[in-house]
Amino acid sequence: MLHDTQTAEGARNACLSALASRFSASALLAGEEIPERNLQDSSFLPPVRPLAVVRPDTAEGVADAMRICAEHGVPVVPQGGLTGLAGGARPIEGAVVVSLERFTGIEEIDPDSATITVRAGTPLETVQRAADEAGFLIALDLGARGSCQIGGNLATNAGGNRVIRYGMAKEMVLGLEYVLPDGTLVTGLNKMLKNNAGFDLKQLFLGSEGTLGIITRAVLRLYPKPGCTHAAICGLASYADVTELLSRARRGLGPMLSAFEVMWPDYWEAATVRVRGVRAPINGPHGFYVLVEMQGLDAEIDGARFERWIETAFEDGVIEDAAVAQSTADITAFWRTRDAAGEFVTFLGAHAAFDIGLPVPVMDIFAAACREKLATALPDVLSLFYGHIADGNMHVVALIPGAASQPMSEIDAIVYDQVRAFGGTVSAEHGIGLKKRKYLRYTRTEAEMSLMARLKRALDPANLLNPGKVLEAEPE
Amino acid sequence: MLHDTQTAEGARNACLSALASRFSASALLAGEEIPERNLQDSSFLPPVRPLAVVRPDTAEGVADAMRICAEHGVPVVPQGGLTGLAGGARPIEGAVVVSLERFTGIEEIDPDSATITVRAGTPLETVQRAADEAGFLIALDLGARGSCQIGGNLATNAGGNRVIRYGMAKEMVLGLEYVLPDGTLVTGLNKMLKNNAGFDLKQLFLGSEGTLGIITRAVLRLYPKPGCTHAAICGLASYADVTELLSRARRGLGPMLSAFEVMWPDYWEAATVRVRGVRAPINGPHGFYVLVEMQGLDAEIDGARFERWIETAFEDGVIEDAAVAQSTADITAFWRTRDAAGEFVTFLGAHAAFDIGLPVPVMDIFAAACREKLATALPDVLSLFYGHIADGNMHVVALIPGAASQPMSEIDAIVYDQVRAFGGTVSAEHGIGLKKRKYLRYTRTEAEMSLMARLKRALDPANLLNPGKVLEAEPE
Repeated sequence: MLHDTQTAEGARNACLSALASRFSASALLAGEEIPERNLQDSSFLPPVRPLAVVRPDTAEGVADAMRICAEHGVPVVPQGGLTGLAGGARPIEGAVVVSLERFTGIEEIDPDSATITVRAGTPLETVQRAADEAGFLIALDLGARGSCQIGGNLATNAGGNRVIRYGMAKEMVLGLEYVLPDGTLVTGLNKMLKNNAGFDLKQLFLGSEGTLGIITRAVLRLYPKPGCTHAAICGLASYADVTELLSRARRGLGPMLSAFEVMWPDYWEAATVRVRGVRAPINGPHGFYVLVEMQGLDAEIDGARFERWIETAFEDGVIEDAAVAQSTADITAFWRTRDAAGEFVTFLGAHAAFDIGLPVPVMDIFAAACREKLATALPDVLSLFYGHIADGNMHVVALIPGAASQPMSEIDAIVYDQVRAFGGTVSAEHGIGLKKRKYLRYTRTEAEMSLMARLKRALDPANLLNPGKVLEAEPE
Repeated sequence: MLHDTQTAEGARNACLSALASRFSASALLAGEEIPERNLQDSSFLPPVRPLAVVRPDTAEGVADAMRICAEHGVPVVPQGGLTGLAGGARPIEGAVVVSLERFTGIEEIDPDSATITVRAGTPLETVQRAADEAGFLIALDLGARGSCQIGGNLATNAGGNRVIRYGMAKEMVLGLEYVLPDGTLVTGLNKMLKNNAGFDLKQLFLGSEGTLGIITRAVLRLYPKPGCTHAAICGLASYADVTELLSRARRGLGPMLSAFEVMWPDYWEAATVRVRGVRAPINGPHGFYVLVEMQGLDAEIDGARFERWIETAFEDGVIEDAAVAQSTADITAFWRTRDAAGEFVTFLGAHAAFDIGLPVPVMDIFAAACREKLATALPDVLSLFYGHIADGNMHVVALIPGAASQPMSEIDAIVYDQVRAFGGTVSAEHGIGLKKRKYLRYTRTEAEMSLMARLKRALDPANLLNPGKVLEAEPE
């Protein structure tokens, strides 16, 4: 191999020359030409300048870029919209970034099959808009919709606002095209809901954060648009009442239940008292605050169903108080209590933030244990708890208010220790990237860790694709 | 390695001795002790007597059996309830069958997480009953429920009656435990709906028909029971009306739509005229017959919704006629028109049967092309078409009525050629096993075929686990 017979620098230069003969000047940026935005993702890790950024505008271009780099033994880091929080798209020194930003667009909408075929670089919001214009819904939705790209959403198996009803990003994928670490382009653009012919290969690339392949195209499932949306904010006395309300929501609202967000009192106070523009729709204090949302078919029929469901829960003493949204503006105002988390940085400053997952029954005792361990180790700590409880996803925010610098790694260690003790997961939706690598073992067994490393070696024996992301150990 | 230094027979005997020191006499059956039922599955391929059948009653026992066989270079064939139609569980001469039949039972039901943890050998119906008694629904259902085992359902990614609403078997799995071809037991019994920590390893074993690992335990998602069920049989003039009705069902019944079964007139006549105990709920003739089913929350509210939906379709001229079920007995009678397919063998005798998948828009032109090609090659052929159209799954039955022997491979070649021409899949739900191996290339690209072989080699370099199933080529 070429790179074995020369210095690393020689291999890099040869790689750059080969890339330059394949790609135009606008598709290949090296050294100081590389824009600042490509030097980091949204993980707040320090920026890194890669060797070059290649921006192919075809799937074959992505495959060629990967193949050329592999031939020269130069690592590749795939980049999408750079909205990831875990460091999965952070550049590596001496590596070539392959950015999907120029491979964009909707290739087909098939109303009879209820599918949409998209290129990986397309922003999620563009995909949502195209589906909407065709009379359908893309079930995936998250805060970064305007800047994140569908390829990145799939590579990280994004969660978002509607998991309880539609599942994670991977559950919306029927077909996938991707480039392997040796530059092979694998096309499997299935459009059928049922296809049981051979191994379900696409699953290897959904959620593996660009370490096994680079996603280039996808066929996504389209859903009918909901006919109406109803929401309520409820105040409850205990966590037992929260799980009882969840159980009633699953039964009484069935497949129309679209969100069940739980906020602990310390979160509620921070959100409704300290964030500008957020008001509490109900008076407190309560032990817990729950935002329930239902997507129905018909405002009259399903609106009456939702109100009756809330009334019964009140009569049965499961909820202490509730406000039911009377308008779209109300629904937006209710969601603001939950979305306020995005504003915490403005008055809390730098803080540790988590997207852990836990079995539903232990969430409140986890919160209590976590709060206690944090307070013991860091007496002035402030910790806030909230999350998508129905899908076992809890967010934690923790910091020392007013401290000049935050004890991030100490907070991490305490919170992840508790996650391990309660049988939870260190990432429910954001992924592992660089930031959670050392905690991955808290969630996965040793046998699983070995199998992951074995798969990485099988597909990427030279460890050239996004090396060091997700898995710490170097494949042998 | 032991088996390289002796004859194949020597290795087999050494393997049997090692198994005999690990397993009791009731757990290890060899030669003539092996019951007839373990010599074949439901594929109608000729029976094969394996070297031995091991029936461990623990997951560690399954791992030990696999490890001992691997150490002696003896192949292993996993067996579940033996209801598979594609030959995936058919024994291989000289191989050891590892049957899960004694590793049964429900380990846990967690109502708050809405999960059930089961052992692989548990019959599906037992799992369904346990969920039902706990007030939940197991969404997977299929005709063989009394004899099939959950491990086999997951290994083949079974489809069944409710895919349109709940997805295939794999979509119900949150956690999985399995044994690798080297005997490693990998436990990943996640119970959380959202878990994005590392590769989603379980997907490799769901639907790969026991060629990459042997499933031992699973955590399945539980759903709320539907509050009510409504159904109608509709007569329609054209396939364009069928797809219009499907589109209206997706919008008007939303996530409550639970079945959309389409029957072509030739099928309808065979089912309602020739099968005993089946009566046509509506008079014909129509171009197409559709069974629509909805699972609602409340009989009064959702029953009225269903009737209004049918009335509107009639007023708009999408359907020519319809009968709406007025009772549970009616619903059963309506389903009998569809389930009649199971009785065809009684009056048609031996016939070729298919579980192909196609993009929804081309299904009718596929049926016409298929009918024509079959009639040209085999002038006296009878072919019947029906299926779960909403999920792209079509069943075809074809035969020469009265012929002493059926031209099975000629019929296969003609039908699968058309599947390839129309961009379909050779298996929507039953899997590939032995019977569809040579047609797998019709559905998957060459790059996908190579990647499947590469994964097989990575996990099973000596090709010892269920060799020759799904993939034809021997891994190198």
